[in-house]
Amino acid sequence: MKTMILLLSLTLSLAQAATPQVEQWGMFEVALEAQTSPNPFVGIDFDAVFTQGDESFTVPGFYDGEGVFKLRFMPNRVGTWSYVTRSNYEALNGKTGTLTCTPAGPDNHGPVGVRNQYHFGYADGTPYYPFGTTIYEWPFQSPEKQQQTLETLKSTSFNKARFLLIPPYRPEYCEGPHEIYDFPFVGTNKETFDFARFNPGYFRHLETCIQQLQDLGIEADVIIFRPYANPHWGMGEMDMATNERYLRYVIARLSAYRNVWWSMANENSFMEYLTDEDWDRLFHVVRDTDPYGHLRSIHNADRIYNHTHPWVTHVSLQYYMAVRFFGASPMLRDIYRKPIIHDEINYEGNISSRWGQLSSEEMVYRFWVGLIGGTYVTHGETNAGEDMGDGWISTGGTLKRLSPPRIAFLRQIVEEAPVDIDPIDQYFQTSLAGKAREYYLTYFGKESITEWPFILPKRGDLEDGLKFKVDVIDTWNMTITPLDEVFEIEKMGRYDFIDKDKKVISLPGKPYMALRIQRINP
Amino acid sequence: MKTMILLLSLTLSLAQAATPQVEQWGMFEVALEAQTSPNPFVGIDFDAVFTQGDESFTVPGFYDGEGVFKLRFMPNRVGTWSYVTRSNYEALNGKTGTLTCTPAGPDNHGPVGVRNQYHFGYADGTPYYPFGTTIYEWPFQSPEKQQQTLETLKSTSFNKARFLLIPPYRPEYCEGPHEIYDFPFVGTNKETFDFARFNPGYFRHLETCIQQLQDLGIEADVIIFRPYANPHWGMGEMDMATNERYLRYVIARLSAYRNVWWSMANENSFMEYLTDEDWDRLFHVVRDTDPYGHLRSIHNADRIYNHTHPWVTHVSLQYYMAVRFFGASPMLRDIYRKPIIHDEINYEGNISSRWGQLSSEEMVYRFWVGLIGGTYVTHGETNAGEDMGDGWISTGGTLKRLSPPRIAFLRQIVEEAPVDIDPIDQYFQTSLAGKAREYYLTYFGKESITEWPFILPKRGDLEDGLKFKVDVIDTWNMTITPLDEVFEIEKMGRYDFIDKDKKVISLPGKPYMALRIQRINP
Repeated sequence: MKTMILLLSLTLSLAQAATPQVEQWGMFEVALEAQTSPNPFVGIDFDAVFTQGDESFTVPGFYDGEGVFKLRFMPNRVGTWSYVTRSNYEALNGKTGTLTCTPAGPDNHGPVGVRNQYHFGYADGTPYYPFGTTIYEWPFQSPEKQQQTLETLKSTSFNKARFLLIPPYRPEYCEGPHEIYDFPFVGTNKETFDFARFNPGYFRHLETCIQQLQDLGIEADVIIFRPYANPHWGMGEMDMATNERYLRYVIARLSAYRNVWWSMANENSFMEYLTDEDWDRLFHVVRDTDPYGHLRSIHNADRIYNHTHPWVTHVSLQYYMAVRFFGASPMLRDIYRKPIIHDEINYEGNISSRWGQLSSEEMVYRFWVGLIGGTYVTHGETNAGEDMGDGWISTGGTLKRLSPPRIAFLRQIVEEAPVDIDPIDQYFQTSLAGKAREYYLTYFGKESITEWPFILPKRGDLEDGLKFKVDVIDTWNMTITPLDEVFEIEKMGRYDFIDKDKKVISLPGKPYMALRIQRINP
Repeated sequence: MKTMILLLSLTLSLAQAATPQVEQWGMFEVALEAQTSPNPFVGIDFDAVFTQGDESFTVPGFYDGEGVFKLRFMPNRVGTWSYVTRSNYEALNGKTGTLTCTPAGPDNHGPVGVRNQYHFGYADGTPYYPFGTTIYEWPFQSPEKQQQTLETLKSTSFNKARFLLIPPYRPEYCEGPHEIYDFPFVGTNKETFDFARFNPGYFRHLETCIQQLQDLGIEADVIIFRPYANPHWGMGEMDMATNERYLRYVIARLSAYRNVWWSMANENSFMEYLTDEDWDRLFHVVRDTDPYGHLRSIHNADRIYNHTHPWVTHVSLQYYMAVRFFGASPMLRDIYRKPIIHDEINYEGNISSRWGQLSSEEMVYRFWVGLIGGTYVTHGETNAGEDMGDGWISTGGTLKRLSPPRIAFLRQIVEEAPVDIDPIDQYFQTSLAGKAREYYLTYFGKESITEWPFILPKRGDLEDGLKFKVDVIDTWNMTITPLDEVFEIEKMGRYDFIDKDKKVISLPGKPYMALRIQRINP
């Protein structure tokens, strides 16, 4: 926990406190006690402006219960920051202070944003390649199960987790006592929920979950709205004023966590009462309220939101077909001109729903197809018969299937590459990606070929005499076998370069093979 | 020619003329003589408001040379219309008149617009299914060649033609005399073009071409800007004021032709000096100036314009890969939520460029793949060594290859269908389309199967006891073979219905086969 908490009693002079310190992209918290109205969640404007030189952030505050209002700030620059609070309530207005921002620690690269148009990177410039997984309801499980989930994540290489901020409806939870989890709103069921009063303890638990992921180096792709479980909870059919109040509360509480991404909803179109324009408005709230511009997207069901809107930072897509064939992902990039994450591609597993029946081979295949298309893919696993859900994607816990180490293997290849993986000749050839002239990955998918003629498409100023080394990759068995030969290219015809000695590469005649081709002369 | 021309001398009282008649969606023309400024193409505002009851159109006028200004009006309602002209030039201002609009003739269904979100229809409600071809430069050929093109079109079933309004650059045309064609601007080469003066004779010829297509029942998908031939002509690098003036002139002249569609450009991104915002602005001019709202799109090269913009009526796409596999077109529909026309899918032919080397089989295959995806496809043919271009796509003339009758065969199937062809289960099954419960087309593409088990996906309220008849379609040999058996369905498992007697359908084990399945009981 790198959070700095500063509780300011209203009777305590600010001058008495030493200047607090917080690391870059860490979290600085201000707490102010104030006895306000009967419902302090409504009608009290409270924020602060944090300033350093020409940089300033307007940071929304929130009521944290028991007479305490808080502000959380994530400084993006080393040095001294000062702040002043603003409120329509006198006790919260005009409070000032300073903090010292120290350099980021070794594992802290800041929040993730868009890099090179189609890719992602941390604020300090380090590339970030998303290899996510899906654990929709892990925060709402028993403490033991949550711990188990964290242990599992520690043992895999997933660096993004998608999960919901609104709990699932399950009948047993309506019968109380609520040992397992709480609710975002005061109340215990649809009849008693007060949608105008939040339950701070509920959100504190979510914050712990986000921090736990952060400590593991995992981005928290938090899903703000969920369509399911109507009419039981009513949380998927709140009116727009309630939606917006909830959204602002979430942003005020969570945006200073550097690993947060905003996923507006899961399968948003299943909230049929909300129009695209309603979603526009909710997006605008995030854009205008989150001081740090965390990544923003939305995940579709049958109706795809218009991800070309400028307030959508990247495409979070559910479209299974798009990772079943080469060529779809490059097209999506060309349409959206943003990073694409295939955030739901069916799940590896064995449940009776056809969206949760992928073999491990197919899951890994879809990861490679997406990756070779210049996009990213998110994992999920189901297991039939698991308590209260479909297995890992619902509850977290343990992973039982074979894709995770292969996904980790792919991640390692991507992170070792000196370039981003982009399509090279996407209108005609779609199983080849990387950066022309420098670095190529070619993936043979389900083909079981025994040789590959060394041919590169005429892209990126290829010229006679360039030399390449080749690694044969078995994506399933996770082996990388360097070849001894050097391949020197020579032009052939209008569109191709081949090895000047017409060398071919032997392959073992089984599926899921790939080649890594890297230039070796300057 | 159904155009009604009314030349009003300024000295002739309007009352003296009998009320002119024009059929619905025909063209009514007003001509006014006026001696104006040294360059009447610039600085003279001239339009007219045509009114019938609560309907009114603001119709832009244009200078047609030799002291004559014109207005062209396409009435959309039977009955009496009145009009009044407006101008900042007194001789063109305040002229009034009436016309009688008579019912449309038998082959006149009005202009084409969007129907059922993903499809097209004429203004009178008749469905229109685009089966287009590409003849970029046919208006700029010899009269004999133009006539030959029309004869060819008459013998095929293409009902849309894409062609350019700006001539190609060819060195021989710079050397004059210009026997073959003229230029849109006054002048004969880049040095002498006056981009502020149009050449009315040039446009009159284009109008003849559009009318000739209309007479054949062919929509004219006119391409307004072209990127090629810089720096020779300069017509692909005009400044935005010139672009806009040219665009307005085109709209004023052509929009009363009911068969006009606006294609803003071919391969627009090759006009690298124009930004997406420039194209937005040009689109806005069309949207705001064309009184009839003709279809509007733009055809891309390497950078795809954002077709989700509301001013784009349908997607005119160049993305070869999208018709090479099933599943891409349904995804495009889901992204754009508009009709999609794959307006360039590579061309059938034998030129040395790889974009013009499709076999006839592949061309027909791509038509079917697009069609089964709920989208439409446009044809084109190349021929190596043809004079002044790449064959049919450049110059028109004759067609030499095998796809046109097969495309006509497909068009007939589509037009006979009682439903539009839409995806049915696109997230999982992509070779089946039509309308669940009513009508299915399933296309086997390059598979050479010998039997097909009668299985329909559980979509569209299928229920036990529904009965279907089946036709076996050979898409290449253009045969339709009805089967004697009736297939009665019964549920099997969670997602499927099969024939209750487990009947399968025999197929000949060769590629390019399809089935048409139609429900026969109520």
